[in-house]
Amino acid sequence: VSTQTSERFQQQVSFLLEVDKLKTVLRQTVLTDGSRRENSAEHSWHLSLLALFLQEYTAEEVDVTRVMKMVLVHDLVEIDAGDTFFYDTDAEGKEQREKAAAERIFNLLPEDQAAELFSLWDEFEARETAEARYAYALDRFQPVLHNLQTEGHGWRQHGVTLEQVIERNQPMEEGAPELWRYVRQRLDEAVEKGHLGKG
Amino acid sequence: VSTQTSERFQQQVSFLLEVDKLKTVLRQTVLTDGSRRENSAEHSWHLSLLALFLQEYTAEEVDVTRVMKMVLVHDLVEIDAGDTFFYDTDAEGKEQREKAAAERIFNLLPEDQAAELFSLWDEFEARETAEARYAYALDRFQPVLHNLQTEGHGWRQHGVTLEQVIERNQPMEEGAPELWRYVRQRLDEAVEKGHLGKG
Repeated sequence: VSTQTSERFQQQVSFLLEVDKLKTVLRQTVLTDGSRRENSAEHSWHLSLLALFLQEYTAEEVDVTRVMKMVLVHDLVEIDAGDTFFYDTDAEGKEQREKAAAERIFNLLPEDQAAELFSLWDEFEARETAEARYAYALDRFQPVLHNLQTEGHGWRQHGVTLEQVIERNQPMEEGAPELWRYVRQRLDEAVEKGHLGKG
Repeated sequence: VSTQTSERFQQQVSFLLEVDKLKTVLRQTVLTDGSRRENSAEHSWHLSLLALFLQEYTAEEVDVTRVMKMVLVHDLVEIDAGDTFFYDTDAEGKEQREKAAAERIFNLLPEDQAAELFSLWDEFEARETAEARYAYALDRFQPVLHNLQTEGHGWRQHGVTLEQVIERNQPMEEGAPELWRYVRQRLDEAVEKGHLGKG
């Protein structure tokens, strides 16, 4: 049996075809031109570029390769579990759904590669390393940037208030304090312009 | 002046907002469920996962981080230059358009980061390193995989023949010989099934 028709290769191809579905998972955030909702695959791509070009703003020095890998795979579980809107407080069962999704999707890969994927995803979710905290900060920063760029499109649509945005996004400070300071200032401007309401 | 409102930070944010436009550049390839055309941002994301999980099939050992960075940025020039259909032989002016695009887009970044981006893009385009040849092979492999998965959707739509697919994709062999052997075999099957015509 040649390598390329081996079971291992078939597993890898199955996984790489399966992840294509992330392109159909829609987020609440719209593109910066407001034309349509963003999907989770292109969002992940965008985060990898943020990781690369904003690394000087991390709280601690990070292994940026690890961060890029984390953001590229952090949303794969949404293929089964869907995107949970960030300000949705009724997100019960989310953790369980996502764990089941990880089990199904990651295990399409050969065991060693599935283990690598679990390791990346678990690290991201736990937020206990500098890399995970930076990755998490970027995952918060990018939608805020889109909201600021589209006059609060997502915020206004869902009636999100300044207080909610602060509460949900301030943890960004841990991984990338300067990004949070920038955001905090822009949020006040957004309120002044009427793009974001107060509670 | 605090760091986050510095000129450097403003340049980085401008660049990171600008690249959002890659999500609106449509390719000829459709998603594996056939629902719509793929955009270049999600395509780049997909390639980064291929890079990570197929690295054992490279012709020579590669620095996979470098490959991932290359595939993540290789299509940015399309924001200005558009996607050139791969079997379009009338792609005159493409190189010039893409160079002008790189100049405008990469130079939104601070000089040191723009230089990093030029280095990645030039390396990808020149195909002279093992990393670039692998990245190029993946950029060929993924659309073929999508075509095989969608009963030759893109091939049939554009009347592409087996001979054309071979001619255009065989260079894949240099960077990832086993991927090419797999593709070559699947192409014959596609012809048998009527998903790909012969010239």
